[in-house]
Amino acid sequence: MKTLQDYIDKLNKLNFKEMYNNDFFWTWDKTDDELEAVFTVADALRFMREHNISTKVFESGLGISIFRDNSTRTRFSFASACNLLGLEVQDLDEKKSQIAHGETVRETANMVSFMADVIGIRDDMYIGKGHTYQKEFMDAVTEGNNDGILEQRPTLVNLQCDVDHPTQCMADMLHIIHEFGGVENLKGKKLAMTWAYSPSYGKPLSVPQGVIGLMTRFGMDVVLAHPEGYDVMPEVEEIAKKNAATTGGSFTKTNSMEEAFKDADIVYPKSWAPFAAMEKRTNLYAEGDFDGIDKLEKELLAQNAEHKDWACTEELMKTTKDGKALYLHCLPADITGVSCETGEVDGSVFDRYRIPLYKEASFKPYIIAAMILLAKFENPQDILKKLEVKAAPRIFE
Amino acid sequence: MKTLQDYIDKLNKLNFKEMYNNDFFWTWDKTDDELEAVFTVADALRFMREHNISTKVFESGLGISIFRDNSTRTRFSFASACNLLGLEVQDLDEKKSQIAHGETVRETANMVSFMADVIGIRDDMYIGKGHTYQKEFMDAVTEGNNDGILEQRPTLVNLQCDVDHPTQCMADMLHIIHEFGGVENLKGKKLAMTWAYSPSYGKPLSVPQGVIGLMTRFGMDVVLAHPEGYDVMPEVEEIAKKNAATTGGSFTKTNSMEEAFKDADIVYPKSWAPFAAMEKRTNLYAEGDFDGIDKLEKELLAQNAEHKDWACTEELMKTTKDGKALYLHCLPADITGVSCETGEVDGSVFDRYRIPLYKEASFKPYIIAAMILLAKFENPQDILKKLEVKAAPRIFE
Amino acid sequence: MKTLQDYIDKLNKLNFKEMYNNDFFWTWDKTDDELEAVFTVADALRFMREHNISTKVFESGLGISIFRDNSTRTRFSFASACNLLGLEVQDLDEKKSQIAHGETVRETANMVSFMADVIGIRDDMYIGKGHTYQKEFMDAVTEGNNDGILEQRPTLVNLQCDVDHPTQCMADMLHIIHEFGGVENLKGKKLAMTWAYSPSYGKPLSVPQGVIGLMTRFGMDVVLAHPEGYDVMPEVEEIAKKNAATTGGSFTKTNSMEEAFKDADIVYPKSWAPFAAMEKRTNLYAEGDFDGIDKLEKELLAQNAEHKDWACTEELMKTTKDGKALYLHCLPADITGVSCETGEVDGSVFDRYRIPLYKEASFKPYIIAAMILLAKFENPQDILKKLEVKAAPRIFE
Repeated sequence: MKTLQDYIDKLNKLNFKEMYNNDFFWTWDKTDDELEAVFTVADALRFMREHNISTKVFESGLGISIFRDNSTRTRFSFASACNLLGLEVQDLDEKKSQIAHGETVRETANMVSFMADVIGIRDDMYIGKGHTYQKEFMDAVTEGNNDGILEQRPTLVNLQCDVDHPTQCMADMLHIIHEFGGVENLKGKKLAMTWAYSPSYGKPLSVPQGVIGLMTRFGMDVVLAHPEGYDVMPEVEEIAKKNAATTGGSFTKTNSMEEAFKDADIVYPKSWAPFAAMEKRTNLYAEGDFDGIDKLEKELLAQNAEHKDWACTEELMKTTKDGKALYLHCLPADITGVSCETGEVDGSVFDRYRIPLYKEASFKPYIIAAMILLAKFENPQDILKKLEVKAAPRIFE
Repeated sequence: MKTLQDYIDKLNKLNFKEMYNNDFFWTWDKTDDELEAVFTVADALRFMREHNISTKVFESGLGISIFRDNSTRTRFSFASACNLLGLEVQDLDEKKSQIAHGETVRETANMVSFMADVIGIRDDMYIGKGHTYQKEFMDAVTEGNNDGILEQRPTLVNLQCDVDHPTQCMADMLHIIHEFGGVENLKGKKLAMTWAYSPSYGKPLSVPQGVIGLMTRFGMDVVLAHPEGYDVMPEVEEIAKKNAATTGGSFTKTNSMEEAFKDADIVYPKSWAPFAAMEKRTNLYAEGDFDGIDKLEKELLAQNAEHKDWACTEELMKTTKDGKALYLHCLPADITGVSCETGEVDGSVFDRYRIPLYKEASFKPYIIAAMILLAKFENPQDILKKLEVKAAPRIFE
Repeated sequence: MKTLQDYIDKLNKLNFKEMYNNDFFWTWDKTDDELEAVFTVADALRFMREHNISTKVFESGLGISIFRDNSTRTRFSFASACNLLGLEVQDLDEKKSQIAHGETVRETANMVSFMADVIGIRDDMYIGKGHTYQKEFMDAVTEGNNDGILEQRPTLVNLQCDVDHPTQCMADMLHIIHEFGGVENLKGKKLAMTWAYSPSYGKPLSVPQGVIGLMTRFGMDVVLAHPEGYDVMPEVEEIAKKNAATTGGSFTKTNSMEEAFKDADIVYPKSWAPFAAMEKRTNLYAEGDFDGIDKLEKELLAQNAEHKDWACTEELMKTTKDGKALYLHCLPADITGVSCETGEVDGSVFDRYRIPLYKEASFKPYIIAAMILLAKFENPQDILKKLEVKAAPRIFE
């Protein structure tokens, strides 16, 4: 693509009118046209920034972030996206707030949203909790807006929940699209989403779930591989199966990393905790059984340690398509000999793919900005065109 | 009111020239005209935001916030207000600073204010300390400005001190004005500011004090009710009496919640700590007597527990005017059966008033923004008019 | 100087083209012309702000700050500088990030820089670490930019490392220039950078090092005074000697505070830790020998206490040029009888110089903004001119 008009022309062919004033919880809530609209707007915003065209569509307004788990990448991606559009990030740090007083989610949601245009929430720690919290939060602001409390209804960008990690997986996918030269070239490609050993425990399931829930929509052959006992949520597997059936691709499972890697065009080896164990942990937390949690953690680490052979080694990479599969990771990776003794990936493999991995990450701010733009503007094509005509430089010149 | 010109016409009739380049410590420092100017500008700014007219009057500049106590509502209100006007909030987190080194308030005040247009301070924990700190801080920046250190003199917005909580009470009052259809309808209305039981201890006195110091200025019959021993600062009671005498209303005290609620048009049931106990605590802190503080806390909780009957129940609400008094709270409330076993208010009462309560809170960002605008611009009417003519949209269109 | 054109004319005579797209690590990396360009742009930006001319050159963009040590002054100076130019500060709080996972500096640097125009880093705690970290960080983003990961290459502003504290020393120097009426009046002036007693331990060496590395470039007679054993890094002393030789000034050392103060035009009495001890501490940290660190700390405090007579007293001040040397400090100072029992300076001396000290500090935001402007714009003269012509007011009027 060469001009902004190309992106606008593409948008004109898509139906995404349901995105206006709506939220982004899970990719599988969205139609193919809607996802393509996100990719297209993300590329358009990048094009504009690269050509020094300001995309500041808000003169004032807040982007509220709530991180219930540590974050660097997503925190900075959200901040970058908000800033790119003119919103100021205000972080709700639950430690500095009065929320501990026993305040309801409904109340907090309204109290922080009087001038909020966007809400970004990461809550990925406990199975059955993260999405529920996001839903409750957004129901509250919808109600607040209907009741005349909030002048505007902020839009949600799910920055990771217990089920999906849409900003990550959409960035991964946009990276794949660019690497393969377009969605049209993905049909029949083999993608291996596989578990890998990590010395740490309790990594969220939202990435593997998000990947199988999204990547099965492009006609690819998606293989989910993990040792026995490391299952992901069955509901998401169902979605992956349905997607594959619809798009003419496939979704299969295996307990062999070798089988998954064999002739794969794309590999995504990454550690996660078993769904059943995470469910158990959630219950132990609810009961306040900290001894039980400690015990579970030790068991899980021991269980992990039985699968140290699940690693993305040079040998395994050689078995992929022409020995050159595209290696993906959401970062940070556990790199053997770099960040840990034995980890998810060989140092030499990681290093060879470092540049594409960083590029993969670079799409996230644009994906988030695109989600915001599509939720806040009824006619984003018109907005993009007007921004081009206005031609305010991002950096003064 | 229908057009921005109506607000401007109203401002033209008021004398608020002393607000320019001045601070907002306590409502009773301000004339009636000045308070009305704050309400009017707050409504005007809301009107403009609702009509997508940008009110960004600063191209750059900082709003410094200092929270010496936890906060969600006020933190986000201050951030929203600053953002609405174009200021970026920079929080002075005393834990991350070098202030512990024994630096003077005078020095800190100047060091953070080189590009500060506004200072927002919450310091409500210790009797005799909060206001003193704010005063010392502002004296320092005034001096700094006079001495040529600071190019501009930042304005103070008191975000709660040990004496008053003006942004809260002004928001409460603007809510009352809107609910009753204008200041002119408040004469003779009965407002009950009453203590209520809470299982937590040491809640600031600034809300009840701020309420009796402000609400006695509108010709209302203000009743302050609390159990014996829960007195507020006598200086503020004096102000309430004087206000009432001037405006033809009344200010009375009682030790009966029932008496206060009887036929009341407005009720504000809320827990606070006794003034004498707070004074004692301040002294114990000064002496570093932490055993003494623990002991005091236990005593106070036991004392509180003797007054569990001080609650805003359905029964009590029935005794108010037509059983429909306007219920106010600064939030978060201790709700019986929701956030605690026995608290300030019945769950069903709170729930019935939830929407108006959230609306009450929604005025705070605009009140703060109005205080800033009136302190930083000599002729705000002219500024509002020019913003309307400029007609830059808040959200691009 | 009276008009913006005067500053532009001055810039037109200087060669600073190497600053474009470059970093600011140490003052001695920069030519005389480059330093003069920083001073000139700093003064020009101050002139513009005082005349209500907006200097917002970025419509969007982030200024990333990384503080590995506490900070008030520098934190607010960086925030002010970024805000003045239109950048939003995003702080990388390493506690809230996933960096503990063992992530490499290269990765973090790229992950936070997708939309970063500026990086400000303070890392002054360990000898041999701070500068190394900054260098590693900037090498990573340079590589990231070359590899097409980052669309722009952010510029570094060194907010203090183990070797230099350029934003501090440049602000100190601009203060001297203003106080003495121009660089041309500094030839032959005596400046005493001397150690002073402080009851705290382990203060960074970057200020004395920065001072002797910078102030020796203006033809002044710079004396470094400290008790035996309180040496600074020998490499920086070498630089000071070379500077002095080039500019016709001198650089001498003494173990007598009296000798240093005698007839001095400028005095900078300030505590620091001995270089050898800081090196030892760095090694103990690397070995995780916390008992050793405790022991070293006690030794150093005992060693410090032997030199309580190293204080900037009224008596000593009388021995300076006409008894009126310009007293400098980077703040906060340890003031005898104010912030500690016995400290670096007499309360009465500090108080007499309070206003000039605060003015000294007021240059830092402008120095930082000038460093950014010179690094991000190839032709800053043109930019300043265009901003003047555009004449957007900082505060709406």
